[in-house]
Amino acid sequence: MTVNEQTLHSLYEDMVKWRRHLHQHPELSFQEFETSRMIADLLEEWGLEVRRGVAGTGIVAKLAGRLPGRTIALRADIDALAIQDAKDSPYRSSVSGVMHACGHDGHTAQMLAVARYYSLHVEETAGTRLFIFQPAEEVLPGGAIRMVEEGVLEGVDAIYGIHLWSPLPYGTAVTRPGPFMATPDEFEIEIIGKGGHGGLPHESRDALVTGASLVMALQTIVARNVNPLEAAVLSVGRMAAGSANNVIAGSCKLSGTVRSFNKEMRSLVRQRMEEIVRHTCEMHGCEYKMSYFEGYPPVVNDEAEARRVLRIIADVLPETASGPCEQIMAGEDFSYYLQEKPGCFFFVGAGKPDGYSPPHHHPLFDIEEKAMLHSARLLIAVANDSAADME
Amino acid sequence: MTVNEQTLHSLYEDMVKWRRHLHQHPELSFQEFETSRMIADLLEEWGLEVRRGVAGTGIVAKLAGRLPGRTIALRADIDALAIQDAKDSPYRSSVSGVMHACGHDGHTAQMLAVARYYSLHVEETAGTRLFIFQPAEEVLPGGAIRMVEEGVLEGVDAIYGIHLWSPLPYGTAVTRPGPFMATPDEFEIEIIGKGGHGGLPHESRDALVTGASLVMALQTIVARNVNPLEAAVLSVGRMAAGSANNVIAGSCKLSGTVRSFNKEMRSLVRQRMEEIVRHTCEMHGCEYKMSYFEGYPPVVNDEAEARRVLRIIADVLPETASGPCEQIMAGEDFSYYLQEKPGCFFFVGAGKPDGYSPPHHHPLFDIEEKAMLHSARLLIAVANDSAADME
Amino acid sequence: MTVNEQTLHSLYEDMVKWRRHLHQHPELSFQEFETSRMIADLLEEWGLEVRRGVAGTGIVAKLAGRLPGRTIALRADIDALAIQDAKDSPYRSSVSGVMHACGHDGHTAQMLAVARYYSLHVEETAGTRLFIFQPAEEVLPGGAIRMVEEGVLEGVDAIYGIHLWSPLPYGTAVTRPGPFMATPDEFEIEIIGKGGHGGLPHESRDALVTGASLVMALQTIVARNVNPLEAAVLSVGRMAAGSANNVIAGSCKLSGTVRSFNKEMRSLVRQRMEEIVRHTCEMHGCEYKMSYFEGYPPVVNDEAEARRVLRIIADVLPETASGPCEQIMAGEDFSYYLQEKPGCFFFVGAGKPDGYSPPHHHPLFDIEEKAMLHSARLLIAVANDSAADME
Amino acid sequence: MTVNEQTLHSLYEDMVKWRRHLHQHPELSFQEFETSRMIADLLEEWGLEVRRGVAGTGIVAKLAGRLPGRTIALRADIDALAIQDAKDSPYRSSVSGVMHACGHDGHTAQMLAVARYYSLHVEETAGTRLFIFQPAEEVLPGGAIRMVEEGVLEGVDAIYGIHLWSPLPYGTAVTRPGPFMATPDEFEIEIIGKGGHGGLPHESRDALVTGASLVMALQTIVARNVNPLEAAVLSVGRMAAGSANNVIAGSCKLSGTVRSFNKEMRSLVRQRMEEIVRHTCEMHGCEYKMSYFEGYPPVVNDEAEARRVLRIIADVLPETASGPCEQIMAGEDFSYYLQEKPGCFFFVGAGKPDGYSPPHHHPLFDIEEKAMLHSARLLIAVANDSAADME
Repeated sequence: MTVNEQTLHSLYEDMVKWRRHLHQHPELSFQEFETSRMIADLLEEWGLEVRRGVAGTGIVAKLAGRLPGRTIALRADIDALAIQDAKDSPYRSSVSGVMHACGHDGHTAQMLAVARYYSLHVEETAGTRLFIFQPAEEVLPGGAIRMVEEGVLEGVDAIYGIHLWSPLPYGTAVTRPGPFMATPDEFEIEIIGKGGHGGLPHESRDALVTGASLVMALQTIVARNVNPLEAAVLSVGRMAAGSANNVIAGSCKLSGTVRSFNKEMRSLVRQRMEEIVRHTCEMHGCEYKMSYFEGYPPVVNDEAEARRVLRIIADVLPETASGPCEQIMAGEDFSYYLQEKPGCFFFVGAGKPDGYSPPHHHPLFDIEEKAMLHSARLLIAVANDSAADME
Repeated sequence: MTVNEQTLHSLYEDMVKWRRHLHQHPELSFQEFETSRMIADLLEEWGLEVRRGVAGTGIVAKLAGRLPGRTIALRADIDALAIQDAKDSPYRSSVSGVMHACGHDGHTAQMLAVARYYSLHVEETAGTRLFIFQPAEEVLPGGAIRMVEEGVLEGVDAIYGIHLWSPLPYGTAVTRPGPFMATPDEFEIEIIGKGGHGGLPHESRDALVTGASLVMALQTIVARNVNPLEAAVLSVGRMAAGSANNVIAGSCKLSGTVRSFNKEMRSLVRQRMEEIVRHTCEMHGCEYKMSYFEGYPPVVNDEAEARRVLRIIADVLPETASGPCEQIMAGEDFSYYLQEKPGCFFFVGAGKPDGYSPPHHHPLFDIEEKAMLHSARLLIAVANDSAADME
Repeated sequence: MTVNEQTLHSLYEDMVKWRRHLHQHPELSFQEFETSRMIADLLEEWGLEVRRGVAGTGIVAKLAGRLPGRTIALRADIDALAIQDAKDSPYRSSVSGVMHACGHDGHTAQMLAVARYYSLHVEETAGTRLFIFQPAEEVLPGGAIRMVEEGVLEGVDAIYGIHLWSPLPYGTAVTRPGPFMATPDEFEIEIIGKGGHGGLPHESRDALVTGASLVMALQTIVARNVNPLEAAVLSVGRMAAGSANNVIAGSCKLSGTVRSFNKEMRSLVRQRMEEIVRHTCEMHGCEYKMSYFEGYPPVVNDEAEARRVLRIIADVLPETASGPCEQIMAGEDFSYYLQEKPGCFFFVGAGKPDGYSPPHHHPLFDIEEKAMLHSARLLIAVANDSAADME
Repeated sequence: MTVNEQTLHSLYEDMVKWRRHLHQHPELSFQEFETSRMIADLLEEWGLEVRRGVAGTGIVAKLAGRLPGRTIALRADIDALAIQDAKDSPYRSSVSGVMHACGHDGHTAQMLAVARYYSLHVEETAGTRLFIFQPAEEVLPGGAIRMVEEGVLEGVDAIYGIHLWSPLPYGTAVTRPGPFMATPDEFEIEIIGKGGHGGLPHESRDALVTGASLVMALQTIVARNVNPLEAAVLSVGRMAAGSANNVIAGSCKLSGTVRSFNKEMRSLVRQRMEEIVRHTCEMHGCEYKMSYFEGYPPVVNDEAEARRVLRIIADVLPETASGPCEQIMAGEDFSYYLQEKPGCFFFVGAGKPDGYSPPHHHPLFDIEEKAMLHSARLLIAVANDSAADME
């Protein structure tokens, strides 16, 4: 069954409107109260069977097609990030320090359009569609695991999800069978030294210098301890020490993320971190606390489902390169759905066609909005293909 | 003329009460509104001629003795610091993030007692006393320069000031002729990199790693570029980078203090800082802004006045070591008064006699309150001696 | 044609004798005078047509089988490394500071056995065999490019080579089609500061501290600038600064290697190095010289030839894992032969079956000598298969 | 008794000749065989009573004046340094890697002239003169302690010594009562990691990166742990790691010097070093050996003797600044003589009057030779004054 292009295009204006509204009113993870209300209200208005408050602020909506077929789940994530929007655009964030800097506003908007599409074509639809609007993809432990625990996958035959991706050129889409996205662990370290007068360093134990020394030492893990043929990242994302120019900092807080694709690598990086933190702090006479939070499992696409998606991409976006793509260092809690059901997660190019596209999580991040048409079309095509796959 | 010990001791209970009240209600530099009101109200109540609102929140009060003599100014500083009080005492700060962590509450309280003392002994007092309650000693450009500009030293023959000092044992007091306290410069640096996804370091320019690298490189200035026989300190007191664990920091702010005793050393340290900041940032592909604020001049005591104070210390606190002390790395805007008038600044031991005394600017800082009796007695004795010095 | 196991095993005692003799008498790159003489003398004794002095100390020997077939070249490298042998074995190196720490002694010995094998089976041999004993694989620009320039590949239809590899278990062999081994660039840096008295750092510009700071800054290239999904290594292998404890070092020399698999990555690492070296030296008031030597091209195996070798490995060593292996970070100037002729380079497991095998270039490096039987057998089988491949 | 200027000037040509000969033929500590022979031969030729082979290569010579007086010892040190002479002068060192880079050639030459002077004025000389030519001032434990142990100070009433000093302007001389020169400790550190292939860092433990990290961490001792008002220096003078570009270094050797003026500071620096070395090595999985050699005691001048020397300097070099000078970070084993006898060590300006004077221990070090006239004149004047001081 092909996608009805006329319907799809007629929804584009709404997609943009919804997306920009969300962009102006971003909400942090598990606090997507207004976002969630807007989604549920629209879905109910269109006649879907809506379940509110799943995993806190999540929404699940069901639509049964009139024709026989399998039950296909489609998932969008809805939360924003603690980043200050630095764009100069009419739809920039109106909330200080909060921003849709990863495109989840676009995910939500295009998934609303997909739901609306099916509500207009329920007669020709084979099988059931389940629309999962998931909270808190950005913050561990994530919203996906709770949605799974609250039973959203019951009766589901396959699940698909997309990410609009600004580093990928508009007009393309990619995925790969097997390990696709990384494990995003997080850590928090607090160094406790001894504060004091800025002119009397010998009476203090300088937690700020200890923290700086730690950051430099941590660079040696990827540079020296990781097999160059394997992928691992350690990024210290935050460091905060001291409160006055003329006072030596008595404490220093650091936090960040570790990315890898398997347990052995995670274990190596974590062990090296623990050794380096311990010895750096002891070297400078400081105490410390360190917490390490194991992140989402790697996203591992089902082999057959990834081939299905690659086939449909080649069909729908014929200009995109065929074949599986490289792995992606980002993590995604879509992995929890894939631990339960066959399915595939894929990336849809959302880079600005004419000019510079800042990376995800950047204060100037934005997407090419027309990419929402691609992702919606691909999700519908994949869902229809999969629903009919009743061998 | 000797000090009337009976009067002085009768004021001790009030000193402690005033000091603890101020300790519980600390106010930041140039925001000492309630502190200033309390000082002025008391002084007026005791019949002094009070000038409010000098240099913003400063107070100057005059008392003319009935006997002939010179005009002697005595100065106290009244501001608190942006430090969170971590003490567990009944009089701990009630203001979150603000604390009298340098003893200015004690300076104010004992100076109030000195003023009250003179108001009770005006008949026997030779010459005039000027009481200067100065705002904002802790933050550049300081309150002293404005008080001088607003004419508080007009007609003054000599000026004296004290610092209660917890590293110095209770029962002692010290000073030295010539260069006594350091120049406390301050600096602020902002590193501008390029933020991005924590798993994609190659698409970012990591301002946090650049900042850590900078802190380590700055250590080489004192370790390698400063003559080991001269004194200099460079302390980075604050560093803040990044706002989320999984976002690479696009900016990093650092600030701190530089201490030295002469222009050549300040110039050397500042030049090396500028070279190191520039090359560290360029090395990591970052831009930067750096501001360097030249601090108070060094406190240089008048030779004759310092000898007067040392003589009186030996008389009043006979157990203290005689002779001039070492230089002090801290700075003081008392230097501005000494650029205009002869005088002397001295330190009065306020270490807890029985146990550990945290350094100044430490979250657990406290003083031995009985030291206020020493400082008040010394100021009265010095002022009387100096007022009578009419050769 | 199968390998005559009786002949092959009868040569094992000689292989071990030759290998141990070479191990005891290692010679540095382009100085393999005695090694070369021994090889040529043996080959002539066995009746091969020997060309001495190719590319300096290289040897090329030809043997024409009696049956029709293609001309197949087999290559061994013969040089040792500037490493002090730390083994405690009867055949440890007798030359101070020189050691066969990469197994080229074994390569040479097993290739001699292959040549001897063919000299005993010339009647049944189809096609011609060319034995290339190449000098100086370890040091840029390597011996291979000169051998190619001196025409050794003229008339050759295909070329094969092996590496005995101690990290790989005995009993296995691996290779892969396409990019297989890395580009091993080298660099040399000299930092020129200003020496002086160890107690007077402010009168010097400390080249040693500058060098240490440089080493730490270089770690950020792989940790922050390299795409985590791509492979790159930067190792500073040598650093030497200063000549006396109480003299500040006026110069510091560093050298090392950079590994990558394509031009873009090489270019990125080289550019970041140049920026970091420049700014680190300027930051510390030092001058510098930097040389960057582009190393061997990556070893890229012919697709069809790699499949042939993988097929024969599966046949000869049935216990080895099938399928292509991962890439290898080491470089090899075998790449120059593969730029001219189809062929394949492969690794033969030489890890000690019972216990710890130190890595290549380690002072305790050694090989499981029985692995030479595997490599000889594989080379003969591959050469025979390829010689007969006359479609 | 004044100095006979005619005699003194007549000896200048010889001084220069002797100094240049020694400069061309420098000998390392305790290996001053030819230097010692030349000194002893000359002294015997002039009729002094010479004792050879004291403390290995030292010389002691005695001359008894005809008039009554005290016994005055004058000391010169005679050894050179392991530095490569980089000068372009006719008298540059002819010995590769060895150089008189601290002026001991000048010390020896002018002391020979002093001895010759007295041999020509024995009739007018009051008291006895002892000329001590001491080996090995540059290398711990130094030659002085052995000379003292071998009894050279028996019967001596006072001892004096000089250092020609290129940072000090020609025409001046300085000293100070009490602590004058520093304690020069030395240390040696060997880091033991695990070597390996340059492309496989994860299989090694990189001793070179560990060493670089250590050097940077050591900078924090002077920058953060030392009281800015006290003097201390830690210089790593040598670092050597690795032997090949493409081999990761399995070991790294560092050595250097620590300077301070009292036991508490030495103890602080040494303890911080031990902590930093231990934790840096353990952090990177390396083992280590560290040796710390306590150096000469500080040079502490006798109060009265220093005043005598300052008085005579003011008399002989009236243009020099009067009053005591600052402390000097260099160490001297002259301290051992001063632990036994009253005396004074002083510095004589030897900076080139017209242009740049490289610091001591620099490959371009040289002295203004005319300064030898000043030092000889001062030593004679001081010795005569002291010999006559028979209250």
